[in-house]
Formats: sequence, C-alpha cells, structure tokens
Amino acid sequence: MDDDVPLILTLDDSGSSASAPLDDLDREELPNENGGSYDVINDASSPAAGDCCAQQSSARHNWEMNYQEAAIYLQEGENNDKFFTHPKNAKALAAYLFAHNHLFYLMELSTALLLLLLSLCEAPAVPMLRLGIFVHATLELFALIVVVFELSMKMRWLGFQTFIRHKRTMVKTCVLFVQFIEAIVVLVRQTSHVRITRALRCIFLVDCRYCGAVRRNLRQIFQSLPPFIDILLLLLFFMVIFAILGFYLFSPNHSDPYFNTLENSLVNLFVLLTTSNFPDVMMPSYARNPWSCVFFIVYLSIELYFIMNLLLAVVFDTFNDIEKKKFKSLLLHKRTAIQHAYRLLITKQRPSGISFKHFEGLLRFYKPRMCARERYLTFKALNQSHTPLVSLKDFYNFYEVVGLKWKAKRNREHWFDDLPRTAFLIFKGINILVKSRVFQYTMYTVVAVNGIWILVETFMLQGGNFFSRNVPWSYIVFLTIYGVELLLKTTGLGPVEYLSSGWNLFDFSVTLFAFLGLMALAFNMEPFYFIVVLRPLQLLRLFKLKKRYRNVLDTMFELFPRMASLGLTLLIFYYCFAIVGMEFFAGVVYPNCCNTSTVADSYRWVNHTIGNKTVVEEGYYYLNNFDNILNSFVTLFELTVVNDWYIIMEGVTSQTTHWSRLYFMIFYIVTMVVMTIIVAFILDAFVFRMNYTRKNQDSEEDNGIVLEKEISKEEVVGIIELYKRSSAATETAQLQKIVLQMDKYGQMSTLFLGRRSRTKSDLSMKMYEEEIQEWYEEHSRKEESQMPLQEPASASNSSLKPLSLRQRSQTVI
Amino acid sequence: MDDDVPLILTLDDSGSSASAPLDDLDREELPNENGGSYDVINDASSPAAGDCCAQQSSARHNWEMNYQEAAIYLQEGENNDKFFTHPKNAKALAAYLFAHNHLFYLMELSTALLLLLLSLCEAPAVPMLRLGIFVHATLELFALIVVVFELSMKMRWLGFQTFIRHKRTMVKTCVLFVQFIEAIVVLVRQTSHVRITRALRCIFLVDCRYCGAVRRNLRQIFQSLPPFIDILLLLLFFMVIFAILGFYLFSPNHSDPYFNTLENSLVNLFVLLTTSNFPDVMMPSYARNPWSCVFFIVYLSIELYFIMNLLLAVVFDTFNDIEKKKFKSLLLHKRTAIQHAYRLLITKQRPSGISFKHFEGLLRFYKPRMCARERYLTFKALNQSHTPLVSLKDFYNFYEVVGLKWKAKRNREHWFDDLPRTAFLIFKGINILVKSRVFQYTMYTVVAVNGIWILVETFMLQGGNFFSRNVPWSYIVFLTIYGVELLLKTTGLGPVEYLSSGWNLFDFSVTLFAFLGLMALAFNMEPFYFIVVLRPLQLLRLFKLKKRYRNVLDTMFELFPRMASLGLTLLIFYYCFAIVGMEFFAGVVYPNCCNTSTVADSYRWVNHTIGNKTVVEEGYYYLNNFDNILNSFVTLFELTVVNDWYIIMEGVTSQTTHWSRLYFMIFYIVTMVVMTIIVAFILDAFVFRMNYTRKNQDSEEDNGIVLEKEISKEEVVGIIELYKRSSAATETAQLQKIVLQMDKYGQMSTLFLGRRSRTKSDLSMKMYEEEIQEWYEEHSRKEESQMPLQEPASASNSSLKPLSLRQRSQTVI
Repeated sequence: MDDDVPLILTLDDSGSSASAPLDDLDREELPNENGGSYDVINDASSPAAGDCCAQQSSARHNWEMNYQEAAIYLQEGENNDKFFTHPKNAKALAAYLFAHNHLFYLMELSTALLLLLLSLCEAPAVPMLRLGIFVHATLELFALIVVVFELSMKMRWLGFQTFIRHKRTMVKTCVLFVQFIEAIVVLVRQTSHVRITRALRCIFLVDCRYCGAVRRNLRQIFQSLPPFIDILLLLLFFMVIFAILGFYLFSPNHSDPYFNTLENSLVNLFVLLTTSNFPDVMMPSYARNPWSCVFFIVYLSIELYFIMNLLLAVVFDTFNDIEKKKFKSLLLHKRTAIQHAYRLLITKQRPSGISFKHFEGLLRFYKPRMCARERYLTFKALNQSHTPLVSLKDFYNFYEVVGLKWKAKRNREHWFDDLPRTAFLIFKGINILVKSRVFQYTMYTVVAVNGIWILVETFMLQGGNFFSRNVPWSYIVFLTIYGVELLLKTTGLGPVEYLSSGWNLFDFSVTLFAFLGLMALAFNMEPFYFIVVLRPLQLLRLFKLKKRYRNVLDTMFELFPRMASLGLTLLIFYYCFAIVGMEFFAGVVYPNCCNTSTVADSYRWVNHTIGNKTVVEEGYYYLNNFDNILNSFVTLFELTVVNDWYIIMEGVTSQTTHWSRLYFMIFYIVTMVVMTIIVAFILDAFVFRMNYTRKNQDSEEDNGIVLEKEISKEEVVGIIELYKRSSAATETAQLQKIVLQMDKYGQMSTLFLGRRSRTKSDLSMKMYEEEIQEWYEEHSRKEESQMPLQEPASASNSSLKPLSLRQRSQTVI
Repeated sequence: MDDDVPLILTLDDSGSSASAPLDDLDREELPNENGGSYDVINDASSPAAGDCCAQQSSARHNWEMNYQEAAIYLQEGENNDKFFTHPKNAKALAAYLFAHNHLFYLMELSTALLLLLLSLCEAPAVPMLRLGIFVHATLELFALIVVVFELSMKMRWLGFQTFIRHKRTMVKTCVLFVQFIEAIVVLVRQTSHVRITRALRCIFLVDCRYCGAVRRNLRQIFQSLPPFIDILLLLLFFMVIFAILGFYLFSPNHSDPYFNTLENSLVNLFVLLTTSNFPDVMMPSYARNPWSCVFFIVYLSIELYFIMNLLLAVVFDTFNDIEKKKFKSLLLHKRTAIQHAYRLLITKQRPSGISFKHFEGLLRFYKPRMCARERYLTFKALNQSHTPLVSLKDFYNFYEVVGLKWKAKRNREHWFDDLPRTAFLIFKGINILVKSRVFQYTMYTVVAVNGIWILVETFMLQGGNFFSRNVPWSYIVFLTIYGVELLLKTTGLGPVEYLSSGWNLFDFSVTLFAFLGLMALAFNMEPFYFIVVLRPLQLLRLFKLKKRYRNVLDTMFELFPRMASLGLTLLIFYYCFAIVGMEFFAGVVYPNCCNTSTVADSYRWVNHTIGNKTVVEEGYYYLNNFDNILNSFVTLFELTVVNDWYIIMEGVTSQTTHWSRLYFMIFYIVTMVVMTIIVAFILDAFVFRMNYTRKNQDSEEDNGIVLEKEISKEEVVGIIELYKRSSAATETAQLQKIVLQMDKYGQMSTLFLGRRSRTKSDLSMKMYEEEIQEWYEEHSRKEESQMPLQEPASASNSSLKPLSLRQRSQTVI
C-alpha cells in the first residue's frame, strides 16, 4: 500500500485512477505508526496489499513523473534557465530530455566548432589546409543541417509560441537561414563571394549549452555599454576639440605631416590616445617651438590619464553593481526552482517535508551517477531537524549540499599504520622528516640555487655553443635531488595524501616531465626545447613561501574558469573581426607595398648587395596581414596590444581607401571595452577576495566546504531494505559492503566527510549575508502575493501553481 | 566680577593671583540669578565691582591664554599635527605663533621654490636664464640661510628633544647641511661639480606647510609599496624565466638582434612589458617560424594582462584600506583635539559646557577674521540643547560647523521685487523666460549648431587660407546670441544669483573672453589662437544635459585639489630624476649621435640635395635630451607616456654605458608606482562617489551642507551689550546694523543660512556612519583608561591632563 500521494494532484491520463489519491487519502487518515526512525524504512517494510496493486503502480508512475519534473526544475535553477522554457507536456518532455544530455551538447559544440574551423579552409585559406570549394561547402551544408535538426528539437520542446518569443533562438534561426542560402549559392556558383556573414557563425558557438559563461560575459559587456558609451563620447568630444585646435595651431608648419588636414589631425589624435605615435607626433612642432609640447601634455593628461581612467572607474562600478544583481537574481532563481521542486515532492498526508523515499527518487533523475550511500548522506546533510522529513527551509540548501563528495573518514592516520613495527618506524621517520620545516627550507634552498645556477649557466653561454648534445651535469644533479624528494614525500605521506595537494601535484608533474625529457634526450630525440622550458618552472615553487603569493595564486586558480571564458569571449570578437578583415584586406599588404605612405619603411624589403655582401633590409610589417585566419588572429592580437598599430592601419589604408581606418578604430574601441571589462573583472575579483580574507581573518584556513555526518548501522540496514523492495541490486550490494566494513572494524557507525571546493558563490553568500536575508524576505513577500506557498496544506489544490506535467498535458493535448 | 574660572587651574607666573580662582570659586557658589537667556549677556551686564579689578584682569589674562591654547589645539587637530609638537611653554608659544602664520608659510614656500628654480639657471641651464656661477651660488646660499632661520625657529618652538625626535625635520637638517657645504664649495671653486644632491632640494618643498597634501600622498605611496614590490617581484621573476627561454629559443636566429645575449633578452622583455617594442621584437622570429608568436602572446598575456592588472588590484586594495584608516585616525585626532580644547574652555563652576563668552574668545584666536554675527551663529549652530552652554557632545561638531558661511536669508524672492510695477512685470517675464525649459533647450541647440558649424568651417579650410584677418561672420552671430543670453540671464536672475552657479560663471567667462578676443582682433592685435581656443569651449555646456556628465564633472571638481597634489607629487619625482639625468646625460645626444646603435634612424639629421631640392631627413629624437631642466621634464613626460621610450633609452645608452638603462628602468618603475596610485585614486574616488549617490538616491539634490538658524532681536542686543563691555567697537557697530535692518523691516528675528560645499570627509562620515560610532566608543574606552574626561567636575584637578600652558611653563622654567 503506497501511503504517499503527491500534494499536487496529478490526474492520470487514463482517468480510471482519479479516485486513487482520494482512497489513499482516506486510508492515510489512520494514525501513523512509524516510530522515530526514517519512515522510508517502515514504509518499505509494510507489506503491499494485493488488491491495490494497480493503484500502487499508477501512483508510482505518478511519482516517477513528479521526480523527473522536480529534477528538471532543479536543473533549470542550476543552469539559470528561465521557467517559461519548462517543458509543458509529455511530448515536450521527451524532446527536452533528448536535447538535455551531454551527447546532444557535444553534438551542438562540435557542429559549431566545425563551422568556425571551416574558415581555416575556405579561401583565403591557411595554405596547408586549403580545401576545394565543393568539399568545404558540402561540409558547411552538412553542419548547417545538423543545426537545423537541433533547432527543430528545441522547437518541439519549447512549442512554437515560446520558440518565437525566445530571442536568442530566433536570431540563431535567421543566421542559419542566411548561412544556408549562402552555402547553397557557393555550391552552385562554385566560387566564394564576399561572405561577411561568416562572422555571424560565432552565434552557433555562443548558443551552445557549454558556452553559458560566454553568454553571461557578453550580457555583462552589453550591460556595461551605456555608461561606457557616455564616457566614450566625452573622450571623442575632447578629441574633436583638440583636433580643431591642433589643426589651427600646427597646420601652418609645412614640415608637420600630422596636422595638415582636419582628418589627419583627428586620426593622429585618435592614435595619440593609444600613445602609439607619441613622441613622433609632437616632434615636428616641438622642433619649431618648444612650447607646443604643452598642447600634447594637456591633451594626454586629460584624455589618457583622466578620462581613460574614468572609463575604467565607470565600467568597474557598473561591473560591481551588475555582479551583485546577477548574484541576487541567480540566488532567487535557484530558490524559486527549489520551491517548485519541493511542491512536487511533498505528499498530501505530510505536507511539512520530503521523505527520503521521494528525495531518493528525485536524485535518481537529478544525479543518476550518485550512489545510494551518497544519496542518503545528502539527505542527512540537508535534514537539520531530527524529524524524518526535510522541510522547505532545509531543502533550500539543496545546491550547497548536493555538490559534496562524500568519503568515509579514515580511521588510520597514516597509510603505513598497518605495517609491521620496523617498517612502520622507518616510514614514520620519513613522514616526520618530510613534514619538518628543515626539509622544506632545504628544498627551497635547492630550488633557489638551481635558479641561480640556470641564470649563471645561461649567462656563460654567450658564445652560443649550447646546441651540444651533452646534458649539463647540473641538470642531472638537480633532477636527482628532486627525484629523491619526490620519492621521500610519496613514501612518507602515502601517494593519495601526497597527490591531494595541488602544489605536490605540480612538483610531481614538473619533475616527471623533466625526467621524461632526459630519457628522450638519451634516446637522441629532439626534446631540447622541452627541457629548457621545464627547468625554470621548478622555480615557481618558491612562491609558496609568502602568504601574499599563495593568496594570489589561489585566487588565480579560482578565477581561471572565468578568465578562460573571458578569453573565449575575446576570441569570438577576434573571429568576427578576422572574417571581416579577411574579406576586405586579404592580400593587400606585401613586401614594398606601401612605398607611397608615411610608413613605407616598415613594409620595405630590400635585398641589396654592398661590395660582395648581401644585405637584407627588412621592415617585416608585411607579415601583419589578413591573408588567412591565423595571420589575422596574430595581427588582431598586435592591434590589441596597441603599440605601433597605426603602422598596420596606415599600411592597409594606403593600399585600400581611407575608410579602412574605421575598421581599425572600431576594433580598437571594441577591444578597449573588452579589455576594460577584463581589468574590471580582475580588479573586482581580487578586491572581493582580499576583503573576504580581511573579514574572515580569524576563521580557519580555507580548505573548501567540509561537512561531517555519521551513519549508524541500523540506518544502513534500513536503506538496504528500502532498496531491496524496489529491487535495486547494485545499490543494495554497495550498501551491504558498508555494513560488512562496519562489522569488520566492529563499529556501530561510520563517520563520513563531505567535501567540495569553495566557489565564488559561497564567498558571495558570506559577504552579502545580511542583504541576502532582506532579498529573501522581499522575494517571499512577492511570492506570497502570487501564490500561497509556505502553508500548502491549508491551500486548496486549485490555487496551487505551477501545474504538474500531466495536468497541463491534459489541457494541452 | 568675573564669574568664570577655567576648570584647568592655571597658576599664574606671578603667583600673586594664585588665590584668585579660589576666590572666584567661593563667590560663584552663590545661586545663579541669570534667567533663561544666554548668561553671557547677563554676565556682561552685571557691574564689575571695583575691588576685584586686579583679580579680574588676571583672570582675564588666564582666560586669554586658555583661549589661545584651545585655538592651537583645534588648529593642530585640523592640520593633523601631532600633539607632541604642541608648544610647551611661553617661549615655545612665541616661536610657535611666529612660525604659524601665512607670512612665515609663504616665506617657507618661496625659499623652497627659489631653491628648486635655481636649477633653471645652474649649468646645464636653460639658455635664456643662464646665470653666472657666483650669482646663483650666492642666491642658493641666501636661500639656505633662510632655511636655517626657519629651522632655528622650529627648534625654539619644539625644543631640542622633540626636534631630534621629529624625523622629517632631521632629514631636512641633514640635507641642508650637505647643500650648505656644496654651495660653499661651488662658490670657492667657481665651478659646478657633479651635484646629484640637488635632487634632494625637493625636501624643502615637501616640508612646507602648504604642501601637506603632497606629504600625505608620499606617505600613501610608501605605504602602498610593500604589496606593490611583492607583485613586482613576481613580474620580474616571470621576466627572467622568459628571458632565459627566449634566449634559448631565438638566439640561434642570427637575424634576430633582440635575443642574441641574455642581457638583450632581458632588456627587450622589459621593454616588451611596456609594449613599446611590440610587434618589432617579435618580427624576426615570426618571419622565420610563425609559431614563435605563441611565446610573445603567452608572455604578454601573463605579464601585461594579468600581473600588471594584479598590480593595480593590489595597489587599489591597499589604497582603499589606507584611505579608510587615514580617515579614521584623522577623525579621532580631531576628536582628541576638541577634547583638549574643551577642557581648557569650561569653568569650574559650570563644567557641563562652554558659554558663549568663552567660545567667542576661542574664535577670536582660531578665526580672527570672523565677524561677531558669525561667531554667535556658529555658537548657536553648535548648541543643540536649549541650555546656554555648549556641551562636549555638541562641541564635537566644531569642525563641521565652523566652516559654514552665514548669510541672512533673503526676504525678497527676486532682485526686482522692489521695482515699480511695469519694470517688475518686464523683469518677471524675463525671469520666467530664462528659467523655462524651452529657453534652455534653444540655447543647447544653438551651442550644438555652433559646434557643427565650427567643425564644418574647419573642414572647409583645407586650403589653409585661415590666416586672413577677417573675423568669420558666424563667429559674430554666435557671439551675439551668447551675449544676449548672458544679458537676459543676468537681468532675469539678478547678477548675484546668476553668478552663484558654477555653470553660469563658466558661460559668463567664456563669453566674456571671446568678446575680449574679438575686441583685440578689431584693434589688430594677434589674439588668433586665443579665439580659436575659446570657441569650442562653449560646447562644454552641452554636458550639462546628462546626469552622468554632471556627476562626473562635479566629482572632477571635488577631486581637483587632490589631483593637483598628486600631480605635484609626480612633478617632485620628475625633479629628482631630471637633476640626476642632467648630471649624467646632459649633452650626450645630438643630431646623428647614435649612428652605431639600433635606433640610429630616429636620431638622424641629414640634409641632402636631390636634384635641385634640399631634402631634410629628420629623426627629431635628439630633441628628447637632458640638456636643461625644461627639456628633461619633457623627456621624462615622454618616458612616462612610455611609447617608444626605448628609443630614448637606447640613444643615451649608445653614448654612455649600458648601466644608463638602470636609470630609465628605475624611472619606469617609479612612474608605474605613481601612475598606479593615481589610477587607484581616481577609481576609488569615483566608485566611492557613485556608491554614495546610489545610497542617497532618495535624498535631496546635493547642494553642499546647509544649516538654518534664527536669531531674535533680543539676542542681538544682548551680544551688543557683551561686546560693549569688552569695548569692541567694530563688532558692536556690525551688530547694530543688523538691529537697524530688523527694525526697518519690522521683524523680531532674522533667519540666517550657513552654507559650505561638501567635502570628501563629509561623504566619508555618511558612508561609514555605523563604523564611526564603533571607532568613537573604542577611542573613548581607550581615553577613559588614560584620563577621566566625561565627568571632569567629579575629577580632581591634579588628575587632569594635559597640563595647561602655564602650568607646564612653571615646571619647565
């Protein structure tokens, strides 16, 4: 007899079971006989009466649906998917499930990457990768068809109405349409036309599930734009004023090529803003009148040192504000998701909480890989009260707890505790040695000596005979020392403990690679660079010494995912500009191309013979071209670094029209935005982190989030019974292992440790502690006005939203 | 009969009046007959008995001393002078007073400036200002003697013990000594030797009273140094690793001059950090192997985009922290100063507060320029309770209130209210017109049209015939419109109200200057530049339109003093480096000087004849030299801007030794520090300001601090009596004017408005409101443990610290 009925009355499709929940309800009015322990166990042990088998299986089916929908809600909460995209009926659910798994995501990603990588092969292609037009156009068509398939799945899942309303998807559809037509045109004409729209291919990548961080970055950039543009206008305004002024002041000087027309004046002041032409632009007028330097000093002081910093300040401020708002909305979104899930998991009979049975059902869908032990531990960790039910208040911590990795707390202190006495003493000695400060500082000294050694050795190598095949003996000596250290540490601490520290892992891999390099050298391969690169890396270990560096490096690792996503965002901008650049400027610069321009020297390539010697005069700048996508990327990076970018600009301009400058200027402004955001991000992250450290100075060392839970033998046995009833063999076997282990050591209970690394969200939670409470209150006030949630038992069913899957499926179908 | 006796028993030098306070005390035990009104008035009206005249004058003398000392305490609090430099006896007081007035400060400043400016005339001098060695050495000696005099006054005031303990003064003394000897040596030898110590002359300027802000900046810079250096080391560490790597990777390529030795490798990576040689340094290796760009991209990403931003983050964070700490210590210092002053102003009889009489006495010393009305208003503004005494709690607001400028609130709304009906209507019409949005936006449109006009006009001038003497008619048209606007506004609002707004003042002065320029042009003078500069300035008015710009500009004006002091700090660093640069590098670069170096082109000056045309090929970089102090400053500015700085460095290096690079690299690092601080400062100020605006969104528009106080006629009459008694004729006359005015309008009281602009300190007070209370509590706990202050009446005199002037003078003398 199933004693649980979902609170949200799920009318079955068949209609026959409509009375079942009511029957259940009647039956459940009986007093609850379960005493003390988690009722899931007792539930399971109560024999199922034969006559209500059909009802029971139907109720179970109901429950399965509820579990799945709750899991979907929780996933939406985690991924910040809006609830209006929640699958609305059974058909939609099937499509949703099809479109929400890693296989599908991977397909999405690889299609997008394939489309992006096609530009390596399309004309102007990288020479080695050039493909026939037929080949790459077919590939493109294939990829686009896959995208069509993906979109149709999405449409199935969202329904046409929602699909139309979803902006990003609509843009994607339009781009897809255009790309499709163009691909067919290329295939028909058998020649590439000017296809700037290729720059839009990025949208396929941006729309990928795995690129959520990139989407967030883009959103943040767009949100920071309004204040940025305001200050940019201020900047341009002063630039125009100074350009007019400069034109009046300096154009009478005919030896001054920088201010002879208003356009030149403007362009040169724009370049001056990047300081790229600095002393040069001043020199002709400075040579004539020393006081003209005042004009430039004032200009740079206002524009570069004041307004540009103002720009950073404004963006930083907006960024800060947005970060907080984003955190807030994410937090509240998660909370709402948890509320939705909670409503699907409580029963009519016991509306005050979720029992383990239902929680376990949820986790089966939410985290299929989780083993039975972990599910129970998660449940126990959530359950703050000592009742068998998880209340809504406890359930709010779901996201914090579900990420924990659980491990039985070791009874043994060292790995060698079980060894015979002599071995134990030896290993214990090594352990003490390895943990001693003397050993540590000796190693630091060795590393420092190694560093100095490398420096001196390199300094001595001025002659350049360093391509001799002999491995320097110092290399072998130091490598031996590092090897011995590695051995000692591994034996002293045990391999598991040794490798659990990030720094040790770093030491280990560097030493291992250096050793491999040496081996390869011995077998006469060419891993010379390999060794050279690896040797100084050891020196990085010295940075463990100082707290500030440790802090910096920790923060760096914490920031890494976010930094990578910012880098990817930058690359997406690069891609767009690279495509546009290639379409317009491919092949326009070449050696000696720009002899008529002011930057002719930089593009010169002269091969003249003086006496009997051939002297090559190379300007090299012709290498900074847009001839293929890789070259374009390098050129764009040079433009990002800004120094001497005007040489590239002028070179291209002299070969095309002077409207080309717009491309370069727009690129400068775009990278300025992205770079400012990156700076603001680093600034924000570090200042946040340091404030956090300052605020929590007295608290313990930062080891991530750790939780401890004890499980008694009876509990395990109870869960085994539960699983046995639902005939889950693997889970039962797993749990029985734990019981066996307990028996072996004669324990009545085992202590488990849940551990996960600290995320930015955890830090934010702690920083905004007080404000969060306000947000919650505000949020629940709003919620209450929409739907009575806190007291679901007293509310009539009809007023409860959202509707469950099947309820809606009835209205829709 | 003087009814007040200072609480702090001031033993007179003569000893005869030792009993006077006690007598006073006895007499004052009588019940106070004063009813209701401020007792100062009644005090004054009570007839002075003849027999206690001597006592009275002695008591008054006591009081004068107390007033003065209290004023000194308050000044010390305001200027953040430490109390251990408080004058300890009568002699010290005389010296203190001598050394603390604007005349002395001006002398200090002008001596320091003279010493600094001497470097314009000393070899290598600016050609026009060259002076004979005898002349400038004598001038220097003279200035140094003045400094000696200043120092001796300081020693007199501080006493030898404190003088020795005061670090800054000791450093100054040492520098003075060295400078003195060197000046004499120069005078004797009649030739300048290498005098790098001239760089130390800055200390005379830094030590000036007026340069307090510079001292604070320097302190802040030094306090930010430790974390800065940590990250700098990280930066240099990576630089060394990459230098070694680069050397191994690229030195086999013989056409690559950048990595052929380890030293070159290091120097070029240092320069690359500033991006100054960017694509060039990569080009030779990139030409050989395209993948070598990875080395440079990784290097720049780590060093430039990550660690450099980290540097900013760390400095910004430290800066934030220091700013808050500084604010706290300043606040507590002021509080202590107020406590000290308070203790000197309360009487034995009424220890619960300060009466107006004593407050007035204090203000006579603290702000001699303040008129009687303002003194009384300040007193009233301080007095929150309705008793005649200002309690300590009220007195704590002293600094906030004393800066207010008081003005009688106008009864008339407009300046033309008293005019006859017709005139009134006309002016009222103008007033309404001028205040209307239509008028405002019309003017904005005119300004915008003017802007576009100027742009188009300038664009049309490509030919260059813009030196015709005709004033363009558009100029006259627009100027007329602005003139009419100015007239309308002045008449409509009244000149006083018109000019009280900063923006109107700006409009007014720009229009006036433009008009003056036109006049000058009419009289055939050459103010062409003048007009050109002024015309686009009008466009700045457009920035009133948007709130963000108003915010930005307001903040800019608020920041201006601080920015100026930061600029001055930078200039001081420049001065030091300029002196060192001149001593070592004066005259080393000249046209065609560096033909053997890699930067020969930039220094080339060739005058060759091709056909019948003379072509001058100028590199101009020889102009960036250290030949005199002005040139050095320009060169250093170019080094600050960083672009192409290595050309200057390499030029100088090729003419001297390669150790010269150290000078340039150190300069780069120093400016990096100062610039980072400046950026951090701007960032901090703006973010602070924006947070403040966000926090106080609902509150009224920011008009500075405004306070309202009403004074009744009786009060004024009472004060007049008081002043009459002390025979202060000017004060009496002033006050009587107010009474007359009240009589004229038949009022019984006048409302006064106190106004001052909001300072950063006010903002901080509001931002840290809660924390400030904690600081105060903490501080008073500390204070209490040192001396019982809150209940001075219950404390015995002997336990009261600090001792008053004369008490100490007795112990000292």
